[in-house]
This record gives sequence, C-alpha cells and structure tokens, in this order.
Amino acid sequence: MHVDADRLRADIESNAEFGAIETDEGRGRTVLAGTDANRRAREYFVDRLRDAGLSATVDAVGNVAGTWTPASADPSAAPVAAGSHLDSVPEGGVFDGPLGVYAALESVRAAQEAGLEPERPISVVCFTEEEGQRFSNGLLGSSVAAGDRTAEEALALEDDKGVTLDAALSDIGFRGEGVLDAAEWDAWFELHVEQDTRLERAGAAESASVAGTDCPVGVVTTITGITHCEVTIRGEANHAGATPMGERTDALAAASEFVLDVEAAAEDVVRDSSETAVATVGSLSVRPNATNVVPGAVEMGVDVRDVAYESMQTLVEAARASLGLLERERGVETEFSRPFDLEPTPMSERLRRAAHRAGEEAGIETVDLHSGAAHDTMHVASATDAALLFAPSRDGISHNPREWTDWGDCATATRVLAGALADAAGAVQ
Amino acid sequence: MHVDADRLRADIESNAEFGAIETDEGRGRTVLAGTDANRRAREYFVDRLRDAGLSATVDAVGNVAGTWTPASADPSAAPVAAGSHLDSVPEGGVFDGPLGVYAALESVRAAQEAGLEPERPISVVCFTEEEGQRFSNGLLGSSVAAGDRTAEEALALEDDKGVTLDAALSDIGFRGEGVLDAAEWDAWFELHVEQDTRLERAGAAESASVAGTDCPVGVVTTITGITHCEVTIRGEANHAGATPMGERTDALAAASEFVLDVEAAAEDVVRDSSETAVATVGSLSVRPNATNVVPGAVEMGVDVRDVAYESMQTLVEAARASLGLLERERGVETEFSRPFDLEPTPMSERLRRAAHRAGEEAGIETVDLHSGAAHDTMHVASATDAALLFAPSRDGISHNPREWTDWGDCATATRVLAGALADAAGAVQ
Repeated sequence: MHVDADRLRADIESNAEFGAIETDEGRGRTVLAGTDANRRAREYFVDRLRDAGLSATVDAVGNVAGTWTPASADPSAAPVAAGSHLDSVPEGGVFDGPLGVYAALESVRAAQEAGLEPERPISVVCFTEEEGQRFSNGLLGSSVAAGDRTAEEALALEDDKGVTLDAALSDIGFRGEGVLDAAEWDAWFELHVEQDTRLERAGAAESASVAGTDCPVGVVTTITGITHCEVTIRGEANHAGATPMGERTDALAAASEFVLDVEAAAEDVVRDSSETAVATVGSLSVRPNATNVVPGAVEMGVDVRDVAYESMQTLVEAARASLGLLERERGVETEFSRPFDLEPTPMSERLRRAAHRAGEEAGIETVDLHSGAAHDTMHVASATDAALLFAPSRDGISHNPREWTDWGDCATATRVLAGALADAAGAVQ
Repeated sequence: MHVDADRLRADIESNAEFGAIETDEGRGRTVLAGTDANRRAREYFVDRLRDAGLSATVDAVGNVAGTWTPASADPSAAPVAAGSHLDSVPEGGVFDGPLGVYAALESVRAAQEAGLEPERPISVVCFTEEEGQRFSNGLLGSSVAAGDRTAEEALALEDDKGVTLDAALSDIGFRGEGVLDAAEWDAWFELHVEQDTRLERAGAAESASVAGTDCPVGVVTTITGITHCEVTIRGEANHAGATPMGERTDALAAASEFVLDVEAAAEDVVRDSSETAVATVGSLSVRPNATNVVPGAVEMGVDVRDVAYESMQTLVEAARASLGLLERERGVETEFSRPFDLEPTPMSERLRRAAHRAGEEAGIETVDLHSGAAHDTMHVASATDAALLFAPSRDGISHNPREWTDWGDCATATRVLAGALADAAGAVQ
C-alpha cells in the first residue's frame, strides 16, 4: 500500500480554506457546526468520498459516512470504520479533526490502489460537532451514533441565539435521515493529533542517536476519565479598609488554599501511584471582585482526569477534604457538586495490536500512550471495539492557529492507520 | 445646647426618600451624583439651610455650603465648617453621608437655639460625589475644594455614557460658580458612620458592667493611607487533560500563592508592628477561565492600607518579593504597578482635643480610633485643620441597605460634634 502524502496534504490544505483566518501566530480556522464554513467543508468531503467511489450518507444529526464495499467484501458483513470530525474551536488549528477524516479516506484510496481485497466494507466517517462550541459540550454526533443520546435530544439543542441543531443542519443541507449506528461496526479507528509533546520528545530523543528517525506514532491505551466539579466558597464581603485582618472571612484567600491543595493532591498522586493523573482549577470568579472589597464569594470549576478511575476518586476526595478543612479553619461556607463524570475508556486490545503490527510492517515505530483529552472514540468505544492513534503535535499546541503537525508525520501516521484498517477489514496486504 | 434627636431623625428619614429602594434586607437608597434623586436631596438640603437662616451657595462642581454668620461673629473671620456628602453607592444605606450633613446642620440649629455667640461664622457643607460611582474614583467635590484638582478637570469628567459632570450638574440646577475653598476655613469637622464594629464592641463591653451605657463616639486619630497595586501573572494556557502536572505553568496556582503571601504578610505586620495594617487581594480575573484549560494569565488588584506609611511600604515590598519568588520557582512572568498611593492623613490635634472635651462636657464617652476608609476629610486636611468623628455602625455594615445606626447614637454623636464645633468657633457654652 502506498499512502500518497501529497494527496493527503492537498485535502487537509483544501479543507483549511473553509473558515480560514490569518493571525499573527499562523493560519487557523473557525468552523462551528452548522455554519457556512462547515457546509463548505462537508460538501468538499462528500465530493472527495464520491471521487473515491464511496457511497455517502448523511444521518439525522449530520454525521456523514462514505462506505467502500469492494467486490471482495460480504456486503452484509459488519464494516470497519474510521474517521474524526471537521468542525473546529473558534480560531482553531487545521489538523485537529480533519487529519483523522482525510487519513481515513486516504487509507481507503491506498487500499483501492494497492488492489487489496478486504472481507468487510470500510466506512469513512465525519462526526458532527466534536468540539461542542455551538450546541453542546462536545462529542455530539458520536454520542448519537453510539446510542448515548437520542437524535431527537441532539436535534433540539439550541445555540445561544435559540437556533436548533435541526434548523442549522437543514439550513446547510446536512439534516439527513436515520442514525449512523456505531454498534453495527466491527471496529473503529480514529487518528488524531496528540495535543501533547510525548511523541515529539520521543522522536527528538531518538534523533539524537539514530539519524533520520521521525517521531513515532502513538497507539492509545486508554482515554482518560474526566470529572468536572463545581465549587463555591462563601465568606463575607466587607470594606477592605475598615475590616481588620483578624475579622475577615475572605473567600478568595480560602479559594487560594483550595487551588493549591488541588494542585498538591495531583502532584502527590502523580508521584505515588498514577503518573497520568491531572487536576486543574481552570476557572475562578470572585464576587464582588473590586480591589477595595474583601471577597465575599468565589466560584471555581475543577477538571480531574486520569486513566485510573481510582486516582480520580482520590483527587475528588482530596478536593472535598480541602473544603472541609477550610470550613473549619477559615469559617467559610462551601458547596461542592460533580455535574460531569466519565470513567476512563480502555481501547480495544485487538485493534491496538493491529496498529502496532501495521507499524512494524511499515517500519514505523509505534508507542503506547494514554489520551488526556476526550475524543469521539470515547463514545464509539461504548458500542464497538475502538482504537485511537496519535500523530505528533509540534510543541503540544492545539486549539490555536499555531497547531502544527509536519506533513511527513501526517503521512507516517496515516500509513499505520491504513495498515491497521486493512488488517481489521481482513485484507491480505 | 440641646440637640433635637427627632429633628435630626426627620431630616435623615426625609433624605432617605430620595432614590429610596426596598430590598429584602432593608430600606436603602441609590443617589448617584447629578441624578434626579440627587437633585431632590440637594433641594431638600438647601431648603433646610434656608429654614435655619443660613445663606446657601453652590460652587462650580456642585459643592453646597450654607453659612451662619451670627452677630457675635466677625464676618471676615475664617469660618469653621462641618459636613459630609449626600450621594450614595448603588443600593447603599441611608446614614453614610447624610448623617454628617444633617448632624452639622443640627449642630448649628442647636447653637442658635442655645443663644451661643460664636466668634467665627459656621458653614454646613455637602460635597459632590464622595462615593465616586459615576464620574470619578470618589472624594470628587472635596478634592476641588482642597485644591487637589481644578474645577475644570472635575467638570470635564464623564460618566460611562459620555455625560460630563458639567452637563449633569447643569441638568439638575446645581452647576454654580466659583470654588468652595477649604483653605479659607479655620477648621473642618466631619461626622460619619464608622463602617466597622469597634464602637459597637466598646459599647457592648461596657454595657456588661455599667447599666444603660451607650456606644462611645469615635475621634479619629489618623485616616489610613491607601495604596492600590495592579498585578499580572502570566503562565501558559494549556489543555487541562493533555498537559501533565510536571509540564504546567499554571498562572492561577501561582496567583493563589500570591494571595496567601499577601494575607500572611499583613498578618505578620499586624502581629509584629502595626495592628491597623490591612492588605487585600480584592479582585482576580483568570484567562481563559475555562474549567478544562490550565489558566494562562491572572490579573489582580491589591489594596494596602495603614495609618503608618512604613508598614504600607513593608506590605508592598512583601507583595513584590512574592512575585519574584514565583518567577523563580514557578517560571511565571509577572508585572507589578502601583497606580494609586496616598499617605496616611493625621487629624488635627487641636480639633481632636476639642472633640474629647465636648464629649466630657456632655457626659459622653469618646474613644480614639483610626479610619480604615477614605473620607472627604482626607482632602480637606491638606488645606486646613481637620477632624473626623465616628458614630457606630450596627455589625459594621455599610454600602448596603442593612446599614444602620441607632437614632440615639446619631443624636449622641451629634452632641459631640455640636460641642466641638462651638468650641472651635469660639462660642462660650
């Protein structure tokens, strides 16, 4: 099989035209679900599917699938599927999502040109609104395809102007019928940019000893679990001049202890038990937030993740313990809730082995790593065997016009994807 | 001299009608400078001045003064003046400002009725926009009267809709001519609510041993100095899931250390050298402030106050030292500025003695304390001898509909003011 690096690049660069923005930091794109830029990206994708002889379908929530059913395949066999998403965050990068969509398509084209004879059909998929910037918190299309949310629920979601997903998809001509069902797939692969520096550093370490070695391709072992906690600390707003130090119940001073307690707890877990654990107080708002008023209340958002659910529980307990201590020692009142909790998602052993094998056969190094970010594959894994591959991200940057993956690394990762897909589809290479 | 508690209460309650708001927590008022509510409050005040036979003048920035020049006085002698302000914060209380204005007027009426024969004229003054909620940062009218700002500068100030003070005052009929000149006064007194609990606690402590003892009246020794610092901490915004703990430069975690360092430094100064010192991180804003993003930057506002300028300097240095340490230990970048700095303002010894003497003669306990809040008297003190008296605030609450001072305490404090004013004006009681 020959992956055509130039053809892959041409697709990603063409896709980068839709919603393109020029910034001082580089070229990015803004492609929110159901916008005109999204329509153009989808139409270009459907055209490329048809060019490759794939039959394209659009489901009720706008998920697009193009299926190749070669003569060698049993048309009634469960297909293997691969893909990602074409939407972006505002001022996002050009690789996050499109790499996985067009690498899947390039894998099919490469299999066709190599004359492979897979036993199963192969589907190339684009999910709706992975980034969750308009209608949802993200992973929208895949949640419907995996049966974790009904199409009706998804279609009724509204953006901040009251426009429903239903109306927005109808508007751009991508409100189809039926629902793409991930449970009907025999296997699912997604290639995505890593959004971290582990592959880049692994490549740099080897370059130092072996000339010409590129970055390895990542094979994800587990997608992190994610908990979001909402915390409120209430003290007493008071005059910053007339309230002596000893008579204050300063909500921000208490919140500062909480932020540092959460950080220290995560560092402890990393050192003692699970090096992949992270905990972040990402948002913090103060009331009344005036320089000359002792803060009366603070609201915070906490993000806790790990591949081990146990260490996530440890971190959540540490956060609650910190609040209990602050109530006793500083006299504040606290509230704690955990509105979002998703356990870690292990990837399919069978498909991970297929990916490593594909790397070996192509002479490409593959390494195991976890994913600290959420991906559509989290949902798909609840419906069928699923795997997630990573291409390196320069400096780990994503969701930013500075996001970059070298074209050579894009092609290298696509070669691993193509081999694994062919393997899973039962094609002898 | 007989201070008429009912007449004083009637004035304060009538004034409370202007801009009145009913809330769950009590009755408050919203009287911003140059609004219709402010016009009504000013017109009522001018009527009361005239009722008492005082000639009322309005200066270019809307400061109102009513002067009593009795036959006993040399009309060319420097007058003694007393007053405060009639504007409020949004949803403020009914005592903050009006107590000082109407207590000054009641003092004059009491002196008249007692047949006192002062050697100097006595002026009752209302300054424009003490609270600084529309055109300025506060203390606006007094800054002009003290020569710390020109009338032209003040009149050109705009609210957030682009309306100038000049236009707003013209609109309500209080854009006068000339400038009230505090340097022409022989002395100045302001009675204000304490906005703290020291008088209340002193009263409660004595009630326990002496039946029927009310709260004492406060005689301010020094008005606190005030420094405002602006601090920025820059880390690196990053994906909360994909960025390991060891690879973060979390601006909020660094800012949390700063908040606690500032608090600890103030507690040290209070314990070791100056118990009146306070330091507050009152405002804090995070960017991008999303639960799933490691904070990239934090901006903070710091308020530092004390009656000893040396300890204010110590606290500012401690804040800078904290930032230096955070740069070295956490790799953040920091910025520090000190856009506002006012040294402590000692009150006139002569007038403080007059206040204590007035208390003794009326059988009212007076206690020395400092003011942690800023007042118009800060500006007046740069132009002439000035004194500040405090009436107790229930639970220390102000700038809030819950603000309250018992009517008996209002009258008691007014008796001290009346005695001190008469003393300073050279009247034999």
